[in-house]
Amino acid sequence: MTLRVLDTAAIEQAATPKLVLDTVRGALIAHSEGGTNVPPPLHLDFPEADGDCHVKAGWITGAADFTVKIATGFYGNPGLGLPSNHGLVCVVSARTGQVRAILDDRGLLTARRTAAAGALVTHAMARPDARTLGVFGAGEQARLQASWLAMLRPLDMVLIHGRDPYKANALCDELNADGLPARPASAREAAGADMIVTTTPAAAPVLDAAQVRAGAHLTGIGTDMPHKNELPPALFRRAWLIATDDHAQCLEHGDFGHAVRAGAVAQDDDITAGLLLKTPLDRPDTAITVADLTGVGALDAALASAVLDRL
Amino acid sequence: MTLRVLDTAAIEQAATPKLVLDTVRGALIAHSEGGTNVPPPLHLDFPEADGDCHVKAGWITGAADFTVKIATGFYGNPGLGLPSNHGLVCVVSARTGQVRAILDDRGLLTARRTAAAGALVTHAMARPDARTLGVFGAGEQARLQASWLAMLRPLDMVLIHGRDPYKANALCDELNADGLPARPASAREAAGADMIVTTTPAAAPVLDAAQVRAGAHLTGIGTDMPHKNELPPALFRRAWLIATDDHAQCLEHGDFGHAVRAGAVAQDDDITAGLLLKTPLDRPDTAITVADLTGVGALDAALASAVLDRL
Repeated sequence: MTLRVLDTAAIEQAATPKLVLDTVRGALIAHSEGGTNVPPPLHLDFPEADGDCHVKAGWITGAADFTVKIATGFYGNPGLGLPSNHGLVCVVSARTGQVRAILDDRGLLTARRTAAAGALVTHAMARPDARTLGVFGAGEQARLQASWLAMLRPLDMVLIHGRDPYKANALCDELNADGLPARPASAREAAGADMIVTTTPAAAPVLDAAQVRAGAHLTGIGTDMPHKNELPPALFRRAWLIATDDHAQCLEHGDFGHAVRAGAVAQDDDITAGLLLKTPLDRPDTAITVADLTGVGALDAALASAVLDRL
Repeated sequence: MTLRVLDTAAIEQAATPKLVLDTVRGALIAHSEGGTNVPPPLHLDFPEADGDCHVKAGWITGAADFTVKIATGFYGNPGLGLPSNHGLVCVVSARTGQVRAILDDRGLLTARRTAAAGALVTHAMARPDARTLGVFGAGEQARLQASWLAMLRPLDMVLIHGRDPYKANALCDELNADGLPARPASAREAAGADMIVTTTPAAAPVLDAAQVRAGAHLTGIGTDMPHKNELPPALFRRAWLIATDDHAQCLEHGDFGHAVRAGAVAQDDDITAGLLLKTPLDRPDTAITVADLTGVGALDAALASAVLDRL
């Protein structure tokens, strides 16, 4: 029996927004109810090559398959004409341990599950009438967070704040071409939106908590290692509700952990994001809400399995 | 660019004993000198299916590639007509993070690097005139430990102690057919040999320390999870020299850790096995020596890379 390898084109076609949103929603809920098995990720660093590798495994308890996902980020690659991110997903039977298939997705499923998780949680936590979105960052996730949220609720304006104005402009052009109103913005403007999503690899907060308006919701998706940090501790102190996709993981290497270590909040001040996807949130109009998403291995497992079942 | 997948037959042909022994020897030495990067492994358990999955990553510092290895053991598989162990190795560039190839080896390289590490360390630590080998267990590693050690030094007799007498007999027939004198033996007989290798998944010691003779060397290779234990703490107390393949890993989930927690030895009473491969060991004839090998990810990295370079 030869190993089954599925290529990016086939995976891209199978991983429709509907499939991804439904699967990620179910997996976030299962994770919030303790119905998943997610061991601590494995990390390797390659400082000389400005690279790192994360390996995440996950299992929705009782599911037929589990997955092991390898994701690399080598940040000097664009200079070599290669993409920064690479990776693949191994789908393994949870009944026999046999490798069912390799999804040679080059990071596509991670990008889509991250987009889906951000959009679902932002939509669930933001005020129903929130219509403006501020985005920090101008990369792939900046684009995906805006366009996937626009599938869930109408957006009047997307304000893109990127360090590189050329990239921010290009992203706005791309979103406009997709029919989404977007323009480059200062950090202050983006921080003043109804909803804010941060998508950067920043090592220090990208916005000033004092610039966030009453009634806003913020979702941070870029912080996935202990040295990274996008959302300031003062913002967590102002928050009426804090959601984390995985409590232990966000404490260890999310923005929530930075806020706890800074003394801004207590380490049990969060609830699990998946809980908010089951029942609508009854939030005061002036409350600030914050979600810290670090990426959960169970989402990879659920999504890879759903894609494989469709192929 | 499609993902390169190498099948078991090609890998088996490339992974000759000479290549494996040379590579594993070099990797154990590099590991003992701090020249490797081996993050803590990732584990997943599937109690209902009597299965587990280990993911190990490793990098010989400065090497062109690193590896991520997925290994599963599902112990009810033989009843389903499937092998208990499965797995594969991903070889990834340490310069760009691109996946160079998947070695679909079904656990072959792990079996061979374990055989090589056991044989090299046993040969380096045993008395030069040690000629009898006691083996606990009658599975694949029992066979490999005997036959690979026989490549390094002559063996007068291999004493196989297996829980299942039928399997022990069958293994002796197989070794005899390969020209190696072997017979089934009681635990007492096997524990009385010049060299003893334990290759079981036991959760309690498989031999009585009092039955081990002065001048003997013992190598444990089966203990790879905290609940497993093959060599008794009392044996470590009798030992003149204790070697571990990885100090932290053996403390956490090796026989050495059991001995430390039982108070038989101190947690810095070991030396790194790779150090013994560079210079011959000057051991007293009556000393007992013990090696605890839990399997190091850097060996997988070195071996996979060497095999890939040959293919």
